[in-house]
Amino acid sequence: MRDLMTEVLEANKRIASAGLATLTWGNVSGVDRGAGVYVIKPSGVPYDQLTVESLVTVEIESGKVVGGTLKPSVDSETHRLLYQAFPSIGGITHTHSTYAVAFAQAGREIPVLGTTHADNFDGPIRVTRDLTPQECERDYERNTGLAILDTLDGDADGVPAVLTAGHGPFTWGKNATRSLEAAIVCEAVAQIALHTLALNPAASPPEHLIRRHYSRKHGPDAYYGNSADPLRNTESKPRRPEAG
Amino acid sequence: MRDLMTEVLEANKRIASAGLATLTWGNVSGVDRGAGVYVIKPSGVPYDQLTVESLVTVEIESGKVVGGTLKPSVDSETHRLLYQAFPSIGGITHTHSTYAVAFAQAGREIPVLGTTHADNFDGPIRVTRDLTPQECERDYERNTGLAILDTLDGDADGVPAVLTAGHGPFTWGKNATRSLEAAIVCEAVAQIALHTLALNPAASPPEHLIRRHYSRKHGPDAYYGNSADPLRNTESKPRRPEAG
Amino acid sequence: MRDLMTEVLEANKRIASAGLATLTWGNVSGVDRGAGVYVIKPSGVPYDQLTVESLVTVEIESGKVVGGTLKPSVDSETHRLLYQAFPSIGGITHTHSTYAVAFAQAGREIPVLGTTHADNFDGPIRVTRDLTPQECERDYERNTGLAILDTLDGDADGVPAVLTAGHGPFTWGKNATRSLEAAIVCEAVAQIALHTLALNPAASPPEHLIRRHYSRKHGPDAYYGNSADPLRNTESKPRRPEAG
Amino acid sequence: MRDLMTEVLEANKRIASAGLATLTWGNVSGVDRGAGVYVIKPSGVPYDQLTVESLVTVEIESGKVVGGTLKPSVDSETHRLLYQAFPSIGGITHTHSTYAVAFAQAGREIPVLGTTHADNFDGPIRVTRDLTPQECERDYERNTGLAILDTLDGDADGVPAVLTAGHGPFTWGKNATRSLEAAIVCEAVAQIALHTLALNPAASPPEHLIRRHYSRKHGPDAYYGNSADPLRNTESKPRRPEAG
Repeated sequence: MRDLMTEVLEANKRIASAGLATLTWGNVSGVDRGAGVYVIKPSGVPYDQLTVESLVTVEIESGKVVGGTLKPSVDSETHRLLYQAFPSIGGITHTHSTYAVAFAQAGREIPVLGTTHADNFDGPIRVTRDLTPQECERDYERNTGLAILDTLDGDADGVPAVLTAGHGPFTWGKNATRSLEAAIVCEAVAQIALHTLALNPAASPPEHLIRRHYSRKHGPDAYYGNSADPLRNTESKPRRPEAG
Repeated sequence: MRDLMTEVLEANKRIASAGLATLTWGNVSGVDRGAGVYVIKPSGVPYDQLTVESLVTVEIESGKVVGGTLKPSVDSETHRLLYQAFPSIGGITHTHSTYAVAFAQAGREIPVLGTTHADNFDGPIRVTRDLTPQECERDYERNTGLAILDTLDGDADGVPAVLTAGHGPFTWGKNATRSLEAAIVCEAVAQIALHTLALNPAASPPEHLIRRHYSRKHGPDAYYGNSADPLRNTESKPRRPEAG
Repeated sequence: MRDLMTEVLEANKRIASAGLATLTWGNVSGVDRGAGVYVIKPSGVPYDQLTVESLVTVEIESGKVVGGTLKPSVDSETHRLLYQAFPSIGGITHTHSTYAVAFAQAGREIPVLGTTHADNFDGPIRVTRDLTPQECERDYERNTGLAILDTLDGDADGVPAVLTAGHGPFTWGKNATRSLEAAIVCEAVAQIALHTLALNPAASPPEHLIRRHYSRKHGPDAYYGNSADPLRNTESKPRRPEAG
Repeated sequence: MRDLMTEVLEANKRIASAGLATLTWGNVSGVDRGAGVYVIKPSGVPYDQLTVESLVTVEIESGKVVGGTLKPSVDSETHRLLYQAFPSIGGITHTHSTYAVAFAQAGREIPVLGTTHADNFDGPIRVTRDLTPQECERDYERNTGLAILDTLDGDADGVPAVLTAGHGPFTWGKNATRSLEAAIVCEAVAQIALHTLALNPAASPPEHLIRRHYSRKHGPDAYYGNSADPLRNTESKPRRPEAG
């Protein structure tokens, strides 16, 4: 549990150091499935004032705060719904990063325009539908999560990112660190996509190139990296002996 | 008074560290309503040479310099008029930040294109009318303030920011720090707005989404943050006990 | 002379720290009119390896190198011609800063689109004509200087900056530091202008606003700053007593 | 060999410090022609965790890993093909830098729009053709190299950079450091080109200006710099005596 809190703390601070946040705009959470809880940033606290003690622990099932003395992020109920819906998700990040928000505000998905995108995500980063007046009136954060579920249509693994319409990106991964890295990727591909579309509004790479890049980093035939995890290899494993 | 000067000093230095200034372009002031004065950056002094001693104290009522040995910022009379017109304003920031100035030069308001804007400002950031030749000829800085008053039409609280036409942003808040943070927000939403409009010139979020985001951070039903102040919570207060 | 060399050294290093340079692209020089020489960056040496000893001293009249063991910047002859033509110039900077070069390559002057520009420069930053094949064939750097003279038409004081067509900005001032600051201003107004034109291709501020801003910082009626020099005040002078 | 490994290590770390990389996206290699091997970044290891021990040594002829315990960069086979095809190449860099990738994804070459480009590269940075489904199916990285060879048409020296379609830049030089510097140049000219085209879609400098700039830095008549190598002069040589 201490390890989880340290990881969530570091991932939240990395929102700022990676240039994804203005002021306090953004939050990361991480889950402990065994304990049935997630740990999340407190609402409105600047990144440089965050400590393990300031983090908030929330029960996945009930939404009850079971640890910490502060209120959780205002987006906590959106995180909770995603944890309930997808057992494979271990961490979630929400930011207001510049280029991803621009796509969300424009109501445009981030299309797969090249291998940088395909190395990481198995398809476009989609935009949710607009919420109705009723969905904004009550349980807004939960309804935001439900709109994300509609958009994902049961698959959270191929593309661990979504844009909520008029708002911004939510990203996720097997733990808090990976969800933060997905947020970094989301912003990078959004920026490159905006510039690509300025140079060629009809840009579209061949599908077989896209498939090659996604599969060399992900899935059973992946050959990228030096650890079991394709996105980032912090623990390198020895290379398999090669035929001479 | 010493606290006020320290805060104004730090807020002025933050213009530079937040990336809002080139050379010496920008100034922050803060007010002491009891003493009837405001403290402001001296004219033309680089941020890294600012000290508490270099700050200038000005009487709100008369405009007379009552503290400090340097001349106040050339924009001091604009600050003074805003302090006179709006008792709720405790701090003012003026910058030449890149994207906000681009909107001011283009003569376009910064529209509410999404929740990042609505989380902070209750409407578009408007542009003043052009000043007349007579208004530029005499008492230019005071007339700039009068044009801002025309634009605000009596309400400085909902949107603590304005663009002076062909010039740049003035922002404010309950103290110097908040006015500086409003300047950071103003630049961030300007940048995102410019990219959004490039992707979709007709972008326009639903009004009920905008209202939800503004009201969850501001006003009687606000539930964002861990202190009484919605914009930034440096002092966290204990969470209210929750029903189990 | 030692003071001049130290200033030229620091100004050259500031090309890099101000974000105006990639690799070794850019150079600053400063003049000693009494000695009839200028001191300039050596050709191709990285900024972090520059020392006072690596600087090169050149005679204004003859172009002969009279100090230092390295070759001067390849652009030295352009600097020399400007020093010969304008006795008021004490320092010159040449960079390949991103946005100013974009305007130079586009063959478009940087128009006066607002007060940020007018606070510093008394008119648009003009672009030279293209050089002829003959002018590129022989004495290219001197011919570049001659094309700048054609463009300036005898006035180097109102706008201390020019764009050489297809190439980039040269800026100047009363000393090396001021020429470097003019390069910072040139890049800043270029970036803001590009964004302004994207938002409003017909943007054009009223002339009386532009005149007010230029004259409050420059000329006999200037009231900006706390020293005799309007652009940057490193030595603050006491404020004049004010009527009570 | 130790010197080569140290240089390759430093060049890989410089991908990150020069702002050319997100996460682990990018790799540099350097060659030892005498030993018939090249040294390359291991796959998926973050730049701040790289050590000399983590680098991988590969035989140019066979592709066999002959040093190191990790797997080489997934792009290793592309590097190998370039080393085989061009004996003059001593180092190779591959990145996903923002603006160069935007051109690659747009399927547009980076045209020579001014002297910044011409100072470094003797022509446009071309884009490879799309690979076929078959070329993506098997030996993808080798086929990427073959498509680069098609594009270069036997000349790797004039323009030490290429964009692989839908993917990103490969650059090279006489050693690892120079290949990294070519990647820095490639990104800089891509960014300036994008802004130039926004200001003037028909921008096109005169050919004689371009020739002058390329030849003053490269080839037999080069007069730029203070060492034998035109791109970067870390060892300054004494200036030749000049006629008085």
